[in-house]
Amino acid sequence: MIDPVALTADLVRCPSVTPVEGGALVLLEDLLTKGGFTCTRVDRGGVSNLFARWGRQGANRTFGFNGHTDVVPLGDEAAWTMPPFGAVIKDGYLYGRGSTDMKSGVAAFAAAALDFVTDTPPDGAVILAITGDEEGDALDGTTALLDWMATNGEAMSVCLVGEPTCPDVMGEAMKIGRRGSLNATFTVTGVQGHSAYPHRAKNPLPAVARLVDILASHALDQGTAHFDPSTLAVVTIDTGNPATNVIPAQTKAGVNIRFNDLHSGASLTEWMQGIADQVAADFGVRIAMQVKVSGESFITPPGPLSDLVGKAVKAETGRDPVLSTSGGTSDARFVQHHCPVVEFGLVGKTMHQVDERVAVDQIVQLKAIYGRILADYFA
Amino acid sequence: MIDPVALTADLVRCPSVTPVEGGALVLLEDLLTKGGFTCTRVDRGGVSNLFARWGRQGANRTFGFNGHTDVVPLGDEAAWTMPPFGAVIKDGYLYGRGSTDMKSGVAAFAAAALDFVTDTPPDGAVILAITGDEEGDALDGTTALLDWMATNGEAMSVCLVGEPTCPDVMGEAMKIGRRGSLNATFTVTGVQGHSAYPHRAKNPLPAVARLVDILASHALDQGTAHFDPSTLAVVTIDTGNPATNVIPAQTKAGVNIRFNDLHSGASLTEWMQGIADQVAADFGVRIAMQVKVSGESFITPPGPLSDLVGKAVKAETGRDPVLSTSGGTSDARFVQHHCPVVEFGLVGKTMHQVDERVAVDQIVQLKAIYGRILADYFA
Repeated sequence: MIDPVALTADLVRCPSVTPVEGGALVLLEDLLTKGGFTCTRVDRGGVSNLFARWGRQGANRTFGFNGHTDVVPLGDEAAWTMPPFGAVIKDGYLYGRGSTDMKSGVAAFAAAALDFVTDTPPDGAVILAITGDEEGDALDGTTALLDWMATNGEAMSVCLVGEPTCPDVMGEAMKIGRRGSLNATFTVTGVQGHSAYPHRAKNPLPAVARLVDILASHALDQGTAHFDPSTLAVVTIDTGNPATNVIPAQTKAGVNIRFNDLHSGASLTEWMQGIADQVAADFGVRIAMQVKVSGESFITPPGPLSDLVGKAVKAETGRDPVLSTSGGTSDARFVQHHCPVVEFGLVGKTMHQVDERVAVDQIVQLKAIYGRILADYFA
Repeated sequence: MIDPVALTADLVRCPSVTPVEGGALVLLEDLLTKGGFTCTRVDRGGVSNLFARWGRQGANRTFGFNGHTDVVPLGDEAAWTMPPFGAVIKDGYLYGRGSTDMKSGVAAFAAAALDFVTDTPPDGAVILAITGDEEGDALDGTTALLDWMATNGEAMSVCLVGEPTCPDVMGEAMKIGRRGSLNATFTVTGVQGHSAYPHRAKNPLPAVARLVDILASHALDQGTAHFDPSTLAVVTIDTGNPATNVIPAQTKAGVNIRFNDLHSGASLTEWMQGIADQVAADFGVRIAMQVKVSGESFITPPGPLSDLVGKAVKAETGRDPVLSTSGGTSDARFVQHHCPVVEFGLVGKTMHQVDERVAVDQIVQLKAIYGRILADYFA
């Protein structure tokens, strides 16, 4: 029996701030190898990843877990009341950077998988795809693992990402998809001039104000069966003109959109371009738009995988998890191109914060849930 | 006979970038003293000013000239093709910082006044109030001179400010007043949050966009008898948020208003406050407004003084000068509290620019106009 709390503590003690491996993957590779997993380090672009499989390659039923061992920086280190890589346990909480996001998740699924294949060897395979590059650009993390798997004949039938998914209470939510996300930057260019003679200039600022007002006032939709309404947040407007007697030539605005399955990066780009063109014509300015789509929306529709996970959560916590698609991005956006994927993990309240901590009993509960999922999947 | 071109050149050679005196006032004090003027240096707050009077203090008819010898910085010094303080004359132009703004004006009225009191001593007095602090904050310039004059029993019956007033052609315009000017800064404060959950934040950016759109779309007026329409220029919007996944807590916007005699700093402040309050209520944000009134609008209505100047300009140039109230501020805004004031000077096209220069024949013409004004005034 692997103790998931002790394993979480061991992982927290590895200072694995992206892109540093910090010993976390080495530790897991050693443990999994001893437990009968075939391990391969898949390193790319200066980051480390670990692929581990128990059972036969190409088995009909292959259950996959995905997670990451890298963590975000400490933030204001002086504000921590516990050593950030100390894994101190106090009053039922284990403290440290990455304790919730998501070394406890990785520890729980590694412990559950090791115990499961030892105690009740299944007719199939279990894959753990663990990355050291999720919190950074994520260019060489889970993507590198999936690329390597495709090249080497490795595949998962289904996959569970162990990210924290519960807002407040253990077991209350799982994620079956995510909204898409894009960033747009608008550069509005007019003609500089003197504030006293605005008719001789073309002020870009009234144009950017109108543009932002139109974009921000528009309700993109009312939500869909499995998605919240899409949202648009104007995140910045900047001019940097210190002179009150000068009308500036240029200003910029930035917008972030989180969108559901009624939209795509392309459809939203077209919508914004139409508004930008209209405002540019109305105000006699130029508006250049740059759009970067971080990810399209995706969903694994409710079905066997979400039923499997929901049943195990209910059995261990007494709660029926909501099938959520809210929140920021995760590596599920990569996995969804390969196989059905859902996300379930513990309460993520303190992730990325000072004094990040995880309830010890939730780690134990999470291992039990993951173990039950494996048992039910291979039953 | 004083040569106004040589005097302009002598003044240009004095590197009198605000607040440096640079020898310009010393030179004038010497020249005017020799010509029979009683001179007093009125220095305050680290800047120098020169008061000079010919004739009896308290004379019924006292004609005043006002101007400045300080100049703006060189800007991109490498871009000058002539030495900025060299006073080189080439192809009919005298080059140098301050050559148009306004050492030629000071030289022209000093030369005209010296010749006039020598050749045809009038029954009255001539005052030259010359400051070294017009291009800077102007806190201790003409204001200091006027304060000192009030304390010391000195007064002008009328005053002519020798700033450049002609946009393109010598003689085409004089100024009988100015629009007022104010700057307003709006600080819009909401509640910071994550871009993915805008409903949990209060984004100040849509509010600032609406505020700016309303302010910029409003036509303040259509102009009045002697004034152009008032103008409002949004000069900057700044947030400084580099994170696309963060809704910022605060943003700022700056507005400059040039206003005519239909408005006052107080009336415009009240108007903007009303809009800011409405937008704040509509968006659930706080909007703090700071207003700084640089100057109220003022006018010396068309009458004896503008007639006098207009007649002299017509006689010397063949043109009837327009009675304008356009443009930025000048020290006439201080003088108007003391006596009727108009402004007339040569073509100001290159003021504040690299390779600032003045047409030599305009300096000669300007001296002739000022001389004729004096002759007609005392006739």
